[in-house]
Amino acid sequence: MRKLNRLNVALIGRGFMGRSHSNAWSQVNKFFQAPLPVVMHTIAGRSGSAPTEFARTWGWQNAASDWKKVVASDDIDLVDIVTPNNWHAPMAKAAIAAGKPCACEKPIAGTLKEAREMAQAALKANVPTFVWFNYRRVPAVALAHQMVKAGKIGQIRHVRAFYLQEWAGPDVPLAWRFDKKLAGSGAHGDLNAHIVDMTRFVTGEEITEICGAIAHTFIKERKLISGGAGGQIAAGLKSSKGMGKVTVDDAVLFLARFSGGAVASFEAARQATGNYNRNGFEINGTKGSLRFDFERMNELEYFDATLDRAVQGWTNIMVTNGATHPYVGNWWPDAHIIGYEHGFTNMAYDIILSLAGKKPTVPLPDFNDAYQTQRVLEAALISAGEKRWVKMSSVK
Amino acid sequence: MRKLNRLNVALIGRGFMGRSHSNAWSQVNKFFQAPLPVVMHTIAGRSGSAPTEFARTWGWQNAASDWKKVVASDDIDLVDIVTPNNWHAPMAKAAIAAGKPCACEKPIAGTLKEAREMAQAALKANVPTFVWFNYRRVPAVALAHQMVKAGKIGQIRHVRAFYLQEWAGPDVPLAWRFDKKLAGSGAHGDLNAHIVDMTRFVTGEEITEICGAIAHTFIKERKLISGGAGGQIAAGLKSSKGMGKVTVDDAVLFLARFSGGAVASFEAARQATGNYNRNGFEINGTKGSLRFDFERMNELEYFDATLDRAVQGWTNIMVTNGATHPYVGNWWPDAHIIGYEHGFTNMAYDIILSLAGKKPTVPLPDFNDAYQTQRVLEAALISAGEKRWVKMSSVK
Amino acid sequence: MRKLNRLNVALIGRGFMGRSHSNAWSQVNKFFQAPLPVVMHTIAGRSGSAPTEFARTWGWQNAASDWKKVVASDDIDLVDIVTPNNWHAPMAKAAIAAGKPCACEKPIAGTLKEAREMAQAALKANVPTFVWFNYRRVPAVALAHQMVKAGKIGQIRHVRAFYLQEWAGPDVPLAWRFDKKLAGSGAHGDLNAHIVDMTRFVTGEEITEICGAIAHTFIKERKLISGGAGGQIAAGLKSSKGMGKVTVDDAVLFLARFSGGAVASFEAARQATGNYNRNGFEINGTKGSLRFDFERMNELEYFDATLDRAVQGWTNIMVTNGATHPYVGNWWPDAHIIGYEHGFTNMAYDIILSLAGKKPTVPLPDFNDAYQTQRVLEAALISAGEKRWVKMSSVK
Amino acid sequence: MRKLNRLNVALIGRGFMGRSHSNAWSQVNKFFQAPLPVVMHTIAGRSGSAPTEFARTWGWQNAASDWKKVVASDDIDLVDIVTPNNWHAPMAKAAIAAGKPCACEKPIAGTLKEAREMAQAALKANVPTFVWFNYRRVPAVALAHQMVKAGKIGQIRHVRAFYLQEWAGPDVPLAWRFDKKLAGSGAHGDLNAHIVDMTRFVTGEEITEICGAIAHTFIKERKLISGGAGGQIAAGLKSSKGMGKVTVDDAVLFLARFSGGAVASFEAARQATGNYNRNGFEINGTKGSLRFDFERMNELEYFDATLDRAVQGWTNIMVTNGATHPYVGNWWPDAHIIGYEHGFTNMAYDIILSLAGKKPTVPLPDFNDAYQTQRVLEAALISAGEKRWVKMSSVK
Repeated sequence: MRKLNRLNVALIGRGFMGRSHSNAWSQVNKFFQAPLPVVMHTIAGRSGSAPTEFARTWGWQNAASDWKKVVASDDIDLVDIVTPNNWHAPMAKAAIAAGKPCACEKPIAGTLKEAREMAQAALKANVPTFVWFNYRRVPAVALAHQMVKAGKIGQIRHVRAFYLQEWAGPDVPLAWRFDKKLAGSGAHGDLNAHIVDMTRFVTGEEITEICGAIAHTFIKERKLISGGAGGQIAAGLKSSKGMGKVTVDDAVLFLARFSGGAVASFEAARQATGNYNRNGFEINGTKGSLRFDFERMNELEYFDATLDRAVQGWTNIMVTNGATHPYVGNWWPDAHIIGYEHGFTNMAYDIILSLAGKKPTVPLPDFNDAYQTQRVLEAALISAGEKRWVKMSSVK
Repeated sequence: MRKLNRLNVALIGRGFMGRSHSNAWSQVNKFFQAPLPVVMHTIAGRSGSAPTEFARTWGWQNAASDWKKVVASDDIDLVDIVTPNNWHAPMAKAAIAAGKPCACEKPIAGTLKEAREMAQAALKANVPTFVWFNYRRVPAVALAHQMVKAGKIGQIRHVRAFYLQEWAGPDVPLAWRFDKKLAGSGAHGDLNAHIVDMTRFVTGEEITEICGAIAHTFIKERKLISGGAGGQIAAGLKSSKGMGKVTVDDAVLFLARFSGGAVASFEAARQATGNYNRNGFEINGTKGSLRFDFERMNELEYFDATLDRAVQGWTNIMVTNGATHPYVGNWWPDAHIIGYEHGFTNMAYDIILSLAGKKPTVPLPDFNDAYQTQRVLEAALISAGEKRWVKMSSVK
Repeated sequence: MRKLNRLNVALIGRGFMGRSHSNAWSQVNKFFQAPLPVVMHTIAGRSGSAPTEFARTWGWQNAASDWKKVVASDDIDLVDIVTPNNWHAPMAKAAIAAGKPCACEKPIAGTLKEAREMAQAALKANVPTFVWFNYRRVPAVALAHQMVKAGKIGQIRHVRAFYLQEWAGPDVPLAWRFDKKLAGSGAHGDLNAHIVDMTRFVTGEEITEICGAIAHTFIKERKLISGGAGGQIAAGLKSSKGMGKVTVDDAVLFLARFSGGAVASFEAARQATGNYNRNGFEINGTKGSLRFDFERMNELEYFDATLDRAVQGWTNIMVTNGATHPYVGNWWPDAHIIGYEHGFTNMAYDIILSLAGKKPTVPLPDFNDAYQTQRVLEAALISAGEKRWVKMSSVK
Repeated sequence: MRKLNRLNVALIGRGFMGRSHSNAWSQVNKFFQAPLPVVMHTIAGRSGSAPTEFARTWGWQNAASDWKKVVASDDIDLVDIVTPNNWHAPMAKAAIAAGKPCACEKPIAGTLKEAREMAQAALKANVPTFVWFNYRRVPAVALAHQMVKAGKIGQIRHVRAFYLQEWAGPDVPLAWRFDKKLAGSGAHGDLNAHIVDMTRFVTGEEITEICGAIAHTFIKERKLISGGAGGQIAAGLKSSKGMGKVTVDDAVLFLARFSGGAVASFEAARQATGNYNRNGFEINGTKGSLRFDFERMNELEYFDATLDRAVQGWTNIMVTNGATHPYVGNWWPDAHIIGYEHGFTNMAYDIILSLAGKKPTVPLPDFNDAYQTQRVLEAALISAGEKRWVKMSSVK
């Protein structure tokens, strides 16, 4: 990799994640003292027309219509991909082929095969890659990782992870998210991907076996959307009376074992009424425990079982202290809390550090790391489908 | 059953549960306007010596050494059993044979076979029976039952139930609770029994299938206790260096489906650091959700999804309002909270109501009901052992 | 005082507090290993008729119609008073005159003058006295006292105390509680009395100055109750249209200074919608802080500012550990929580310890102690009435 | 005021608030559809040198050394002031004199006299003015305002407001914040200013009387800082041994009455151990109650006393629903929470709306509004100093 004195970023795609990444690249220069200044060089569409309006709003210097040219351009130092999942593999492989460092949204790919190919391509070409598991960069989650690594929890016995949402009621029409061909899976790839990565990251352990799983679709038919993406999706899924078939899961639960001996449960759901974005975990170890809930993302709960028993309890740590907590010193004074988007900016900073040859604040997930998470998701679906336990070693 | 004008109770057994039941029978006359006055007639031991000291402390009028005579005595109107699990079946069957209403501690029996026999005997003899699933009588849990029944939650989609404790660290010696012959199982029968009953009670649904399970023992050897009960237990379990084998589970997790279509997870654990007695559930339905945690047993969290969206949220109901909440009017003014033992007194009151031909505040579990819970526990162990799903219809 | 081998208790009065005390005397023998067995000897009325029904329900051996004879009887070892506030002084003085240890409900008296006379009489006669500030015996509050005493909080800087209720809406009629002649004051004597005592107890400091106060009555007229106590009350308070004047406060707030230099705020309210029985405090010191809320009375929040900054936070201590927390070992296992009534039983135990010549678990308030609390309440009313600061040394 | 087709902003000052404002002006174009595009035209220093580095980091097009020229320039459409408090008045008056809309950080001025003059100048010149009470633009606080206005709380009875911090321990040296000449006051102007504004905003009522107050300085001497700002400050404050006198308060508490009849308490503190930035309120009305704590700024607690009593309780509203909650639709999906800085961006948007002749989301505070808040702060200090109640009508 050549030595850089600035980082020209090209973003491919827009949408919700396009906003999150654009904001991250825009904010990182302002709040962080990065070793390389970021240049928001080019935003590229994939539909043939250049996203000039988006470029103007977010401060991208150029808007391009042909992502292949952008990826190949000498002006670009980092390719950042936020397109739908089925586009990740071709784009990322093109970037790797061009020797370009590549950052990709999660889940890494639409299928396990693609994920494996991406990971192998990156390893072979020795190109730095990154997957945007943004929750690793929430300061409380990064602190949890550091505390486990420092031995504060002891040997891990129990892991409970959950990502509960409620938006997918019966009135929500048949959008692309409910079509397996476009989305790969439902709550599983969207939500379980995050908590599998997060628990692997925090525990520092790998999942070794899936010990039962349920994949369930509560609402089996949804209203067709006429025209546009909706019309496209519905092809082949039409049933009677303007309704179409849902081909992905609404909820996936599974039980698992971790390499250090812990037993674990995972759950992703989209109809868990009352839970808007409850993404979190509880980890119990022989010396202590940790709890996290993204809806209160500035807080980490810690139970220190080594303290005098009379004063033991769950401690609510406001992870907002610039002097002692990761990332925080770049933002605001104590308890002037940060939000969802800051995880992305923190990650942008760590990507820059990494490309500048420095160590990121906490480990960054590369394509191979994300491929391991994808293997776990695949194993859970096999377990649910075949109604049996599945050893991770059998899933490639 | 003859018509009663007072209820002479005989208690068999002592220990932790002996205290809970004695307190309940003692308090019910004071705080409740029961249709029959309770008389604490006799406490019986099973070891040959009469528990006179215990009788004096708790106000039992008589202390007897032979439980068989007590069960058969015409003076006794209700037999209450709090002995170790393997004694439940013979005592309960003797009471039923004598035509005596019988209340038994949970789990109903040491084995599924015994539970089935007890349930069948009670049905055949048409004798009223009760099992002390005391958590049904926590006002917040009873309210949850009433709210689900009234349709406030809609169709149930998700059930999460947990009973987490932390006391069984490596320094705890090989007590009877760790010996399968005496205890039947570990956390499973002790803790999962409660949450299987509680979720069946609150949802009003039955579990139809177990979809994977883990039964795990973290600490496989414990220090032998010399002499007494400890010495007895260790017979046949001795290993090297003063250690003995643990033959029960430390933790059991399982996934399940309910008859109304909900997917569910259950977990019992004894080494979940930071969780002293975290016994609770979360239930998500199409119209709302409920959450309960026994460590804050006077509170029920309710999410009403039918309210104006701008003011929706989790509402913390202090279930302490005498005018509108079950049982509460018999205790103290609003928010003068009650504790663990009150669930037992509330249940004693409902048993009296039932024996007086009245309707209990909320449904009471009889032997057949407890047998259904026992079947679920058995099915979970089969699932864990054979690493596959298990249909409830296959477990008798 | 003669040496006792049992404690014959006489209770004068019934009502809400009569139940609380009867329960306490009934339970203490069962749950505690007291050095003297308690005998529930006599319950006495003050209206001329013996409370035989109450005696039977609660297990008092005798019901007497003449409290004066009871107080004077050689059979009685302790006189316990739960009558309305204006009866405390004559009864307590009679008990002291008879050389009888005397326990009295709070507030100690209807007027400051009576409180002072009671304190002086007790000191002069050297008779043990007790005032039922029951919240001192909530384990979490007792633990707070122990922690402050052990220096864990350092020098105290801030005290915030509150006792908020909501029951006194406009539909509540003109009961005796709203009549100054009968009740002395409104929320002030009923609620501020508790939190003044509790903060003096926990901090170990005295209030030295009142720095402003508001005493306010939101609802100035209430419906007259026809007949009975209500009719009695209304005499002299009648206004138009079946309404009568309220002559006590609905809310009293005041600011104060403590002897150790802390600044403090106090608030009692009866129309603080949403607060059923929110009785608590927050104390900030140079080394740490404590928070308590009676609605979660089994929990104490502790902030330890001496810990490593990265893991500092508010720790929720479940004050339910028998091995390390006060009183708890006599009740149930960890996190099997206790309720409102247990504070009274814990206090009954400490009274017995004290009368047996032993040290109570934490200090007991005697008449002189309660008189100091009464002085603070009086000073706050002066401050509110005269719209100025008031030095405690000026109030006798 | 001329009609604008873009808004050229000039910022005077830097520091913590300079960052907050720069971020707000930078983000508003990206996340909001404002009727006027914002141009970050000029950043001006007041020390004679142009802040070019700051301009480059934050994207200001120009860096100027002479604020007077900037204020007078035809290119500037809005003057935004973030200098120390004693500079607010001359700068704001210059802006008003030049006919320029002016936004000023809080507190509006160093003295009440200056605040009054600023308010009068703005009224006379009919120039739009704004004061950055940013907490009004936290969605939960804006929602509270809307709910009170819609009558959901009924008549307000109780207001409790607090702003507690803990940073000012004895090791913190004698910075400008501890010097009355530079800072005006301590916790009072810094923190009470916010909660006086916030409660006036949410209740829609004015404070009519101060009923007692304490202003206290716990740490009366602090270490001198040698050189720089520190050296400057210490002039005249030196005492012995390298220590200097603190001339501002550490904590100010006061009691008050609101125009609608509510009684209220306020507290600002800098040594309230365990409270990093606890800025909030509780308001009790006849129909319901509201609670807010900035440390969980995405949540508003609401008690609806008009609901069926059996399900009443405190409801935790996640104020993150784009469809129904103020400002939120411009940010992220539900429960993807926002942080401290977003209040400023939300306010920037409302300022633009206002200057474009549209109605802001919720009312904006102008100089006169901020002057009313300043009057309350002054009255509280008079009350504390003279140890008496103070009617607001007596303070101009």
